Amino acid sequence: MTKRLSDCRVTVVGLGLMGASLCMDLVQGKLCREVRGVARRSETALSAFFENAVDQATTDLQTGVAGADIVILATPVRTIVDMLAEVGPLLWPGALVMDMGSTKGDICDAMAELPHHIQPIGGHPMTGKETAGYEAAEPGLYKGATWVLTPLPRTSQETIDLSLELVRAVGAKPVVLEPRRHDKLVAAISHLPFLLASALVHTVDQTGVDDPTVWRLAAGGFRDTSRVAASDTRMFMDILMTNREAVLAQLDTLDTQLYKLREMLANDAEADLRAKLTHSQKLRAEWKK
Amino acid sequence: MTKRLSDCRVTVVGLGLMGASLCMDLVQGKLCREVRGVARRSETALSAFFENAVDQATTDLQTGVAGADIVILATPVRTIVDMLAEVGPLLWPGALVMDMGSTKGDICDAMAELPHHIQPIGGHPMTGKETAGYEAAEPGLYKGATWVLTPLPRTSQETIDLSLELVRAVGAKPVVLEPRRHDKLVAAISHLPFLLASALVHTVDQTGVDDPTVWRLAAGGFRDTSRVAASDTRMFMDILMTNREAVLAQLDTLDTQLYKLREMLANDAEADLRAKLTHSQKLRAEWKK
Repeated sequence: MTKRLSDCRVTVVGLGLMGASLCMDLVQGKLCREVRGVARRSETALSAFFENAVDQATTDLQTGVAGADIVILATPVRTIVDMLAEVGPLLWPGALVMDMGSTKGDICDAMAELPHHIQPIGGHPMTGKETAGYEAAEPGLYKGATWVLTPLPRTSQETIDLSLELVRAVGAKPVVLEPRRHDKLVAAISHLPFLLASALVHTVDQTGVDDPTVWRLAAGGFRDTSRVAASDTRMFMDILMTNREAVLAQLDTLDTQLYKLREMLANDAEADLRAKLTHSQKLRAEWKK
Repeated sequence: MTKRLSDCRVTVVGLGLMGASLCMDLVQGKLCREVRGVARRSETALSAFFENAVDQATTDLQTGVAGADIVILATPVRTIVDMLAEVGPLLWPGALVMDMGSTKGDICDAMAELPHHIQPIGGHPMTGKETAGYEAAEPGLYKGATWVLTPLPRTSQETIDLSLELVRAVGAKPVVLEPRRHDKLVAAISHLPFLLASALVHTVDQTGVDDPTVWRLAAGGFRDTSRVAASDTRMFMDILMTNREAVLAQLDTLDTQLYKLREMLANDAEADLRAKLTHSQKLRAEWKK
């Protein structure tokens, strides 16, 4: 018998920006039978409960996941990896375990070790804000966002279907990918921009040591290009450490690209530089998001 | 006798985003005696005239600047440099010549060659959009923006005062700087971000050759970090070619910063990487703009 989302008790572990926003969507849309939240801090659990972000809240993992049909782990990546070992024995047979981590390789490797009666699938909603934590959570966060699903070889079609239903129910657009392929692609479009933004902030900071006026002049170009550097450091540490090889490869490609631009500028190769900048101008202007 | 803005005939040469937006502010706010616009294309001159962006419009430079108290050059940087030689002999004694170019060194060098009876001052409003041209112009563009003024040694206090009045009249915040100092600072916070954004787009493009799905996954981090790559290529070619040394120096600083991050990641130096990312996280989060 196929499970529908509306029949499911859903437990979200981790009531930060991503987890709490998902809970709000599920509760407000009455999308499932019950929404339970597990928070590390009792203050967060209490806030989520009294603000109706969840139907029930606890700081105890075992209490939180007991009897759940769907368990969604929404903590930083390495905490998800550790938690998977812990949560496996606590779940009922047939329970679906998804996560919301930003890298998928290590997580799906850990999911492969779950007891055989558990149905695992990786998940990564491609949205967020610089501000992390429960206080930043809001309903509708996933509307229009791409949400990557990374099934394992053992993941059943029913589990994929139920996951697709969940993703679509909160307004996100699912994309199904193999975990390592996901990691390679997000290294280019998410992890690399973060490191670039950090390097840019450090560069401006260095100029600012001699001449602090630089911060007064900083306008739109700096604001946009550096924005992701303000993201949660702990989250990004986990991302970088669990996607090192792919990130290093992207850094090398970027280094080559930057070197080409530098040489064209240094050698007064105007026509080449114009052609190169025109190409990225067109690509970026035509990319709709 | 001190000139006030309200007494002045102002001519803006170049009715792109920057020039036409300034004209609109001057006309709508009745901030000066008359606003004349000089456009390269007659379609633009006609649109500006019939849409009341200017009081008078022409495609002829000589007609446009004749009798003006203030002439503002609002074209790409190298066109401004060329135009300064042309415009000098056409102006009345005491005329103020300002520009809106994004680099100031070459322009102020060319301004130093103007006839002695002309009063030159460099200008750079630190705002803009990716979309260039007359169609993108709008009143209020300069509200709250930093507007750098770069006087020459020969620039009189009256000219500085009149320029400050103009800048403040459109709601911008003036900052007075020496031209080469301006160029060094904007190399860090504007020209470097542009090259980074271009290199990022090229890097993602390279990943996209093997796997075009990368463009579907691209979300907020890529969007923000790459945004300035969509800026007008012609404008940025002039900027880069007239600020090469400062931009190359910033590229080298960035390269060192990026290399440090890369090595920490490659060598699993977690504590160092965390400290480095925490520093840029704080700097960026505390920078208010």
